[in-house]
Formats: sequence, structure tokens, C-alpha cells
Amino acid sequence: MTVATLLVQCTDRTGIVANLTNFVAEYGGNILDLDQHTDEETRRFFMRLVWSMERFSLGREEVPAALRILAKKFDDFSFDLSFADDRRRVAILCSRTPHCLYDLLLRHRMGELEGEIVVVVSNHADLKEVPEHFGLPFVHIPADADRAAVEARQQAVFEQYGIDLIVLARYMQVLSPELCARWPRQIINIHHSFLPAFVGARPYHQAKARGVKVIGATAHYVTADLDQGPIIEQDVVRVSHRDTVDDLVRKGRDLERQVLSRAVRAHLQRRVLLEGNRTIVFS
Amino acid sequence: MTVATLLVQCTDRTGIVANLTNFVAEYGGNILDLDQHTDEETRRFFMRLVWSMERFSLGREEVPAALRILAKKFDDFSFDLSFADDRRRVAILCSRTPHCLYDLLLRHRMGELEGEIVVVVSNHADLKEVPEHFGLPFVHIPADADRAAVEARQQAVFEQYGIDLIVLARYMQVLSPELCARWPRQIINIHHSFLPAFVGARPYHQAKARGVKVIGATAHYVTADLDQGPIIEQDVVRVSHRDTVDDLVRKGRDLERQVLSRAVRAHLQRRVLLEGNRTIVFS
Amino acid sequence: MTVATLLVQCTDRTGIVANLTNFVAEYGGNILDLDQHTDEETRRFFMRLVWSMERFSLGREEVPAALRILAKKFDDFSFDLSFADDRRRVAILCSRTPHCLYDLLLRHRMGELEGEIVVVVSNHADLKEVPEHFGLPFVHIPADADRAAVEARQQAVFEQYGIDLIVLARYMQVLSPELCARWPRQIINIHHSFLPAFVGARPYHQAKARGVKVIGATAHYVTADLDQGPIIEQDVVRVSHRDTVDDLVRKGRDLERQVLSRAVRAHLQRRVLLEGNRTIVFS
Amino acid sequence: MTVATLLVQCTDRTGIVANLTNFVAEYGGNILDLDQHTDEETRRFFMRLVWSMERFSLGREEVPAALRILAKKFDDFSFDLSFADDRRRVAILCSRTPHCLYDLLLRHRMGELEGEIVVVVSNHADLKEVPEHFGLPFVHIPADADRAAVEARQQAVFEQYGIDLIVLARYMQVLSPELCARWPRQIINIHHSFLPAFVGARPYHQAKARGVKVIGATAHYVTADLDQGPIIEQDVVRVSHRDTVDDLVRKGRDLERQVLSRAVRAHLQRRVLLEGNRTIVFS
Repeated sequence: MTVATLLVQCTDRTGIVANLTNFVAEYGGNILDLDQHTDEETRRFFMRLVWSMERFSLGREEVPAALRILAKKFDDFSFDLSFADDRRRVAILCSRTPHCLYDLLLRHRMGELEGEIVVVVSNHADLKEVPEHFGLPFVHIPADADRAAVEARQQAVFEQYGIDLIVLARYMQVLSPELCARWPRQIINIHHSFLPAFVGARPYHQAKARGVKVIGATAHYVTADLDQGPIIEQDVVRVSHRDTVDDLVRKGRDLERQVLSRAVRAHLQRRVLLEGNRTIVFS
Repeated sequence: MTVATLLVQCTDRTGIVANLTNFVAEYGGNILDLDQHTDEETRRFFMRLVWSMERFSLGREEVPAALRILAKKFDDFSFDLSFADDRRRVAILCSRTPHCLYDLLLRHRMGELEGEIVVVVSNHADLKEVPEHFGLPFVHIPADADRAAVEARQQAVFEQYGIDLIVLARYMQVLSPELCARWPRQIINIHHSFLPAFVGARPYHQAKARGVKVIGATAHYVTADLDQGPIIEQDVVRVSHRDTVDDLVRKGRDLERQVLSRAVRAHLQRRVLLEGNRTIVFS
Repeated sequence: MTVATLLVQCTDRTGIVANLTNFVAEYGGNILDLDQHTDEETRRFFMRLVWSMERFSLGREEVPAALRILAKKFDDFSFDLSFADDRRRVAILCSRTPHCLYDLLLRHRMGELEGEIVVVVSNHADLKEVPEHFGLPFVHIPADADRAAVEARQQAVFEQYGIDLIVLARYMQVLSPELCARWPRQIINIHHSFLPAFVGARPYHQAKARGVKVIGATAHYVTADLDQGPIIEQDVVRVSHRDTVDDLVRKGRDLERQVLSRAVRAHLQRRVLLEGNRTIVFS
Repeated sequence: MTVATLLVQCTDRTGIVANLTNFVAEYGGNILDLDQHTDEETRRFFMRLVWSMERFSLGREEVPAALRILAKKFDDFSFDLSFADDRRRVAILCSRTPHCLYDLLLRHRMGELEGEIVVVVSNHADLKEVPEHFGLPFVHIPADADRAAVEARQQAVFEQYGIDLIVLARYMQVLSPELCARWPRQIINIHHSFLPAFVGARPYHQAKARGVKVIGATAHYVTADLDQGPIIEQDVVRVSHRDTVDDLVRKGRDLERQVLSRAVRAHLQRRVLLEGNRTIVFS
């Protein structure tokens, strides 16, 4: 049984939900999940609609055209349609720290992620054996003074593997604005603080210095503005005066891997929409 | 602007969402919120649909008849319709502990609860001044060997005040099966443990004896089976070997008042449906 | 039975714990609680020592002199000694929002706070009936262009009531540097964000604009630097795209009152020490 | 620099802390950490004392005799002494589910555990490659109708590797009372519920059936009574009506691995003491 997932956004008005659910029902689709949201300020409408294609009388290649006709009834209507077997292809970028990498690869193996991790790229060779243990290729592209050359090599790998999503699993290099622009809403990073607190380098040291009682981690889409992209997921853990910076790093690792994996999972399940610099994450 | 809230349940089949959202759209209603759920095992469908009546061309007294006609298309269809200004009338039953009582009354005053607390009934006189401070009547009905007589007096108060919901805010008496049967899904209790752990009396003592590292509180609908009714909300807090039973009681108070208030709030917002002995709480 | 609580800090070296616990044991005191901490970077030692005075052969007025002699063995030794019946006297400053005020007054009545709330001061008359319901005096000192005059009146009230601790329970005025300096480590404020994120005004609006998935509250000692004082306690709650600013305010209220009350409770139990701009909170 | 960790328990009386800290100070030891607890009901005293051996004038083999002399001053005094380089040797028992196994092995590699995982034993061959990837031996001992024979083979492995601690990382076999008796307080299990709720088989199914809003995991020492041993650590996660049993299993995996690893870490750091069927876990 194939399942279709439709993400829609448009200016809010009467009848949108009825029109879309009618469309599904008229062709024999059974709705499996529906979530919607209207932003109070901007009056923008967002919907995620999931239906079974089992007895759906339109072929999947016919659906987009039908939706484009439907769209004419509404203002600023845009949509994203996918099918459960269109599994997005994921590249992981990492450096030397293995915890997020293991976490993603193990979840992938256990079937928690609705996508395919297909390649792991790193600026160091340290973690080479990790993807290999999970049966995945590892590509070593060392960092270099010539960032453009490095990114060209990375881009070639992404193209070779037909990548849809890039996950920065504690990748310790800043991406160029050009690379960010080429992959809008397709790069997810984990920042090891509760953003917007402690932007930039060494957030655990900053947290220790400020004497906070809770530390956090934040998964966000990467934009050209460092640590300023739309937040997908965050979580926190309590700390105390007894925790050294090393303890914060250790406690933070547990947060980082969970927060990053939840964000990647939500993205791959097509649960994340964007309104300006904020996300709507349908649960 | 009046807002209508419709809760629906029926056997799942194609077209339910379309039919109901069409119904709203055809008469000019704008959907403000929609949440739905199909139980995987029982194939039962549940929906909560909220729309603005501002330009709705049916009068509110005409809606039920229209829904009954619509219902004929579906199996085992039942619905519950209400309007934002139909505020449910709430009685609180308490004994001697004030924390849940203050919490509910303060939230009521601050406009957090979509209902009206109209009377406080207690088997003790200790808390008399609390409802009075909030401008509400207090009725003292002492416990007595003749439980039937006590409950008859309580029932008379509930009828006098036109009560829709009874909240047991740490009320230390067990209700008779008759009273439970008379108010199905209309009595909410707070039990001071993480059910089903520590059913019955003195749960904090039980928790201390077992050496748990987390304690909880559970808000549930009251049925004739003690502490077995459908769970609406639960939450927990960490404890350690340093916590005496008195500390558990103190930490538990914070949980109890929050968990009870969240459950009452969800009930009054018509977010709670029942499937057998389980609740669906739309968020 | 009287209980003594001693807070000590000095430069770390061998034998401090032995010296202090020996001192208690030699005079017949039984240690009830002991917690200690040495800061890794600064090598500064902190201890909280609680013992029963029941069979202690020194009178309580003799203890400080004995400690001063002991102190000569150590570097930069300072201490704070108190007895369980020296209950600190607390003034609450509030404005119009009642939730933190009710929370503190109810906990006080239920015996959760080891201190005495003795007066409530506000720049508005709205909450007059709240302290009166709890049997406490209310003093109305309206805000005024002449802040110095207002603060002089407040100071007179604090002196009249013999105040040891000032709690800002959502008090919506900024205190002058002079007032802050007069009450070092004796003013506790609740800020409605997870500091250092969202310093300053309207933090819930800032949180909504940034699209965070978790909001927080922070209790801290007030210093002349707005929202920069030492953090005593913090906590957070999850939010989503569905939460409007009003929802954040409502959810935040639950956090604020709990975080503030925990900080006040810890302070009154003499559990809080300071190292620079950070707190050590012994649990 | 070697560090000594001393766990002590005895009947509470005046002077215990002074005697022990004096002992350390007299021989030139610097106390690095001290935590103590007296049980209110049983009046039993517990302490964990950590000191630097750097300038300690007793050799480590002399310390036990000195402590035994000291012990004569107190009633029912028992102690457990260890040094940081006495790293406990750990065997992991698992079946087919890899998440707890990976978690422990990765934390071991990253230096989070103060012990040595030296062998992995399983009743299935499925996870063979996991310990091998981490450079550890894997021993396959299939389950069999003759449990005694199986356990004899396991015991032989434990003896061969000089095991101090057995960790059941989702091991799906019940241990015999004889095996439990041979390894008292040396076997840690992870149970996939918030004990004492949902003892026994298929706790996630039980949780779904009861309709709880929070699920948990519990790490405990194994005794002959199934799921009744002393609880070391517990934690929980929220669930809703949307979560199927499969979702509970998935969410539970994150809990299980964290709760188990925290318990193992605390045990290896000698932070766990027992009072009857309850643990004291010094933080």
C-alpha cells in the first residue's frame, strides 16, 4: 500500500480543508492523518494530509496536475507532494565526534528514519570505520585553506549520491553562504546550546561561565547566518555547580544525538514546514 | 464571534473528514482547528472540529438536526456539539488540603479555564474561606456513616447549581457506585501516584517503601472501580533517597495541582474523547 | 531541638572538613547534613554543615567566636552561621499579576518555606486582598517619576518590618543601582525567560519571534546589571507552533511560580552560596 | 594521582564524619568529594568519601587494616574501599536488540564509564559484529531447555574474564535464583516500564492497554524476585493516543539505553549503596 503525503500552504480562507479532503475522497483515498495550523498574525494556512493510495483512482503522476488546478481557487498556494516509497537520500557530514553519527546510523538500521542514509563525509579520517560497520561508504575530504575547493568536492559527492538532505552531525566547519544557498531547508545542524543562548563557539564553556542550571541542544536548518536558522527541535537537561565543563560536554552528548535525530526524523516524515524563520512541526 | 466545537466518533471509512469539513464550508463556517485520530486496532475514527459561526448560515439550534442527517451516511456515528459561550458549570469537592483548590480557583479567575466554577463542597469546614475569597459559595456537607444521605445532599447541591462537571480536588472520600454511574465521564479525580503504580491509600508511603526514583500524579475520570478510570493526564518528578515521605508529599503537591488543572482545562475545552477505558486528548 | 546551619568558604587545602566536623563532634553535636564542593578552576572550597544543638556544649552565642579561632588555620575563610529558629523575614514586591504571590503565600502557610513572609508591597492596589486573605499586611507604594522617593518609602517599610530578603514576584519596575547595592544577595527576582536568552522586556514575544521549541524561567539574585545576576534556579517547558504569545504567557506562569518558589526555598534553607557571578546550590 | 573511594555504612551516632575525615587528613589525604545520608527511619548512616592518595602516607594495602581498627568505635560498621585504577570488569548479556549494547560500548569507548567492558555474551548470534566492531570478544551461548547447563557455561565465561558486574542489556531470559544468589548486587537489568507498574512481560502492550500518558524504564539490581530488585535509576517520556505500541517501543528504546547507562555508570563510580531493598545513589 502506498501512502501519499501532501504539505500545503496558502493564505487562509473558508473551504480549504473541505476542498482538499474532498479531492482525496472523490478519488477514493482514505485519509490516514491530517494536521493543520493557521498562523494568528500572518493568517497563513498550513496543512499536512496523509492518505492511502490503495484505492485512489488517480495515478501518482496525475496528482500534481490535479492539485495545480485546485490551487487556482486559493491565494499563494504552494504544495509539496511525496509518496512513502520516495525515500529521501541523506548524506551525513561529521568530524571526529562519533555519538551523533552512531545514533543516526543505528536508528536508520532499526527503521526509525523514513529515508536512506547513503554516504558519510568527513574532514577527518577518524570515523572511517563507523559507516563501514553499518555497510555505508565513507568519503574523506580534508579541510583546506581553499574552502571553495573543499565544498566543490563535497558538492560532487552529494550529486553522485543523489542527495536530498545533508545532516551536520557535529561537523566542525562553517559552511559558505554559497553552499547554504544551494541547499535551502535541506541542511540540518545540531548546535550544542539552547539557542538563542550561547551562539557561536564553545557553548558549554559559555554555559559554565554564566552559571546556568539547565543546558540545551538545538537542531536547526542551516542558513548563511550562523546559528540563526529556523529551529526544528530543542531539548534541555539539568546541570549543577558540581558539573565541570567536561560533565556538560558529556551530558550534552546525550541531548545532541536525541535532538538531532528527532529533527531528522521529523524532516524525513515531511512534518516540517516553514513560516519565515520559524518552523511548524506537525506531531 | 461564536465558535462551535464538534466532537465526532464513528467507524472509520473513506470520506468522513471531507463530509464534515464540507458541511462546515457549505454553510460558510471557517475552520479554526481540526484534529482527528483513527485507532489502529478498533478502526474507530475520532475528530474534533472547531469553526467560526460568524458567517455560518445555520442557526446554532439547526446544527444538530443537520448533523443527524449527515450521520446516516456513517456507522455508529455519535457527536457532541457545543458553543464557546456554553460554559460548563463546575463543582469542586475537597477535604482539608488547599493546594488543588487554590490552583483551580486562581486559574479560573485568570481566565485559563473555559468553564465556570460555581460552587465548592467539602466534608470539612477548614477551607471555607478559600472559595469565599474568590467570591464563590461554600457548602459544608460533613461525612457521615450514612453515605447515601451524604450523597443525596451533594446531589441536591449539584442540581441546584446546574453542574456539568465534578472535580475531586484531593477529596478524601470514596464515591458510591451509584454516584459514579449518575455522572459518567463527568467526575475528574486526582490520584497522587503514577497509575497504575500505587493504587489505593497512601501512595507516597508506598513509593518510599519501593524506593522509586520518580513519583507521579494521575488525573482520571472516576468510575466505580477505584483508581481504574480512564487516564486524562499524568506527570512525574524526580526524587532521591534524601526525600522523606514528607518531601514526597510536598513535591507531589506541585504535580497534583498541575496535572489536575491540565485535565480539567482539556475537558472544558472539549478535547477529551473516550475509547473504551482510554482517552484521546487532542492537543 | 535546635539545629545549626553553617556555610563556610575558604581556599581549598587538606584538613578543612576534618577540622570542621571535629569541631562539631568535640562539643557533642550530631551532624545531620553535610555537603561540600571545591571549584575546579578557582580551588575555592564551599561547605554546608548542619548539626543538632541538642547536646552541643557551646551556647549558640559562643559558636561564632570559636569559629573565628578555627578560621585562622585557613586562608580567606568566611562563614555564615544560623539557627533553625532564626527565621528570615521576607518582603514580597509585586505589581498586578497574582500567580507568584499566591504561590509564595500558600507555600508559606503550608510550611514549605523556612522563613516568615511578613509584608507585601506593591506599586498597584490590585492585589491588596491577596495578602489580607492570608493575614498579612499590604503596603501600596505607587510608582512615581521620582524613583528615589519611591525607593525611600520602600526602604522604610523594609526597615520597619526587619526584612532580610526581598522577593520580586513579577514586580514590573527596575530597581536603582543604589537599592541593589544596599541589599546584596538579598533580592531574588523571577525573569520570564531562560536566561541568558531573551534578556529585557517582553521575553515571551521574543521567544515567539525566534520560534523556540522550549521556553523557560530564571530566578536570580538582583544586581545593578539587569538580568545578569547570579542564577539560582531555572526550568523550562515545551512549546510548539500552536502556542500563541498568550499561550506562552500562560505556560510561563506555571514555570515562574515554581522556579521562584524553589529559589526562595533554597535561599531560606541556606543552601545557596556565591562564587563570583555563579551560585552553588546544595541539594 | 590515585584516588581512593570509601563507602561506609553503620548505625548513626555522633562523630562518624569527624572520625573518618580525620583519618584521611591525619595521613595527608585531601578530600575531593564527600556525600553522606542518614535514613530517618532506620537511623542508619551512609557515606561516600573520595580523597587523593597523592600525599597519603599509608600505602593502599595498609588502609583496610586501619579502617578495621577505626570500625571498632562504631556499631555494625561495614566498608567498601576501592582505588580509581581498580577498574571493575563488566560482562554484557544481550539477546537480539542492539540499542543498549551500542550505547554501553560507545560510552565505554568515549571514557564515560569507570570500568572495563571485557566480554559480550548472547543467546543469539545476531549481534556478533557489534562487540567485534568495538574490539571486544563475543560469546554465543544459545538458550536451551537445560537452563542450568546454559548458566554453567555463562558462569565459566564470567570466571574466565574475571567479571565484577553483569549488565543485562535487554537480555530476554530470566535468570535462575541460583545465578542471582551468586552475584548479589552485581547484576543490573533494564526493565522497559516504570516499575512497579507493568511488571513482567510485554510492558509496552500493558501500557497501551491501560492508556497511560507517560511511559518509563527502570534499571535495577537483579534478585530472585522478578522485577522486584532495588531500583537504581528510572526515567520517563510522554506518550499520547497517537502512539501505537510500536511507537512506545521506539520511544522506550531511548529511555532504556539512557537509564541503563546511567545506572551502570553510577555503579562503576561506586555511588550506589543499599538499604534493604532501596538504593542510595550519591550524585
